[in-house]
Amino acid sequence: VTVKLYELAGAEDARLFSPYCWRIRLALEHKGLSFTSLPWRFTEKDRIAATGQGKVPVLEHDGRTLWDSWTIAVHLEETWPERPSLFGDAGGRAFGRFVADWADTVLHPALIRLLLTDIHAVIAAKDRAYFRQSREERFGMSLEQVTAGREARIEPFRQLLAPLRAGLARQPFLCGESPAFADYAVAGTFHWARAVSPLVLLADDDPVAAWRERLLARLSPASRSLTRFY
Amino acid sequence: VTVKLYELAGAEDARLFSPYCWRIRLALEHKGLSFTSLPWRFTEKDRIAATGQGKVPVLEHDGRTLWDSWTIAVHLEETWPERPSLFGDAGGRAFGRFVADWADTVLHPALIRLLLTDIHAVIAAKDRAYFRQSREERFGMSLEQVTAGREARIEPFRQLLAPLRAGLARQPFLCGESPAFADYAVAGTFHWARAVSPLVLLADDDPVAAWRERLLARLSPASRSLTRFY
Repeated sequence: VTVKLYELAGAEDARLFSPYCWRIRLALEHKGLSFTSLPWRFTEKDRIAATGQGKVPVLEHDGRTLWDSWTIAVHLEETWPERPSLFGDAGGRAFGRFVADWADTVLHPALIRLLLTDIHAVIAAKDRAYFRQSREERFGMSLEQVTAGREARIEPFRQLLAPLRAGLARQPFLCGESPAFADYAVAGTFHWARAVSPLVLLADDDPVAAWRERLLARLSPASRSLTRFY
Repeated sequence: VTVKLYELAGAEDARLFSPYCWRIRLALEHKGLSFTSLPWRFTEKDRIAATGQGKVPVLEHDGRTLWDSWTIAVHLEETWPERPSLFGDAGGRAFGRFVADWADTVLHPALIRLLLTDIHAVIAAKDRAYFRQSREERFGMSLEQVTAGREARIEPFRQLLAPLRAGLARQPFLCGESPAFADYAVAGTFHWARAVSPLVLLADDDPVAAWRERLLARLSPASRSLTRFY
């Protein structure tokens, strides 16, 4: 199997801080597929120009180039149906998609406002001007203004996780006794944060923290090293 | 089939304003099961004393008494597996449960703070003192204080629906081409609101509004009459 995966990388390559790249890395590990990681920086648009868009993850396999983490996950599932399933069944696929939508629309907008300056601090030097300009334009204020007073927004962030707690009160993973795509869709969110920020997002006694630990324990050593910082 | 369903009722019986009762009514209609509705008021705890708890829906079937909307839904699915499935498969069941958890923990806490005085206005006279006292104790303020300035909280409520919009941009129902339990878990939330309140919760051009209309169009005439008010 020759799979190449373009993944967002920081100044030293040694951390992965895109929730969408995490989803695909976790999906590849779930399926037991080896792959070559190609570290990619924000400003290296030319390296993925063939996709007609400017974001990673981008996956190359068997002469095909795919992008968008959902599209890639479905490709992996359909290409290797005999390997451990990411979705289990059609309903599980709908479940995974809904949880990913929820993370994308609820968790990520809240979290980026906590992490923005931390991300800026760890990205490659050549990415910094681009990152600052594009994000300050998006938020209509400076990076520092976005994250100012962020400690007060940790508790509201924790409250957003209530739907996870309800499920994790009944079972160890969102998908049941073992994790699958719905878990990875949210795990990517937390691994992203952990790779860049010292913020303590989860209280020690939060069931979500225990769930995150279970998922961290399942990571390969290589992946674990990409989220080792906090 | 002899199924009896205790359902929350207002002063005139003619509206149903419990999201959990709605879930079960929608589930029964999905399975094509006829049932006898037993209107129940908040203060009639003695009529459901056998359940050891004080809430509806309560379902009686074949000598058994069941409560908790999720337990009842699973019972319906397992008792009549040959009828249209509420979940489709194991993953669909997990999907339905997650969406119900999300509605319970995110939508309902926001919505009750918009609807509380409207509910008080339509419940049976004998329920009003109980309702006011128990809810004012829960919220630590008067009913009127809870809903004061609610117009300003409609837009934040709409923002909570972002995960639904993502899915409904791709397909007519959360469950795909036709609705199932995950749809009913959220439809119950909106039918509840529509049964008691003139508040316009959804903008006309919101895909969630079009989805709600599709679900309203599928209701039996009897059920439609229970959410006819607004």
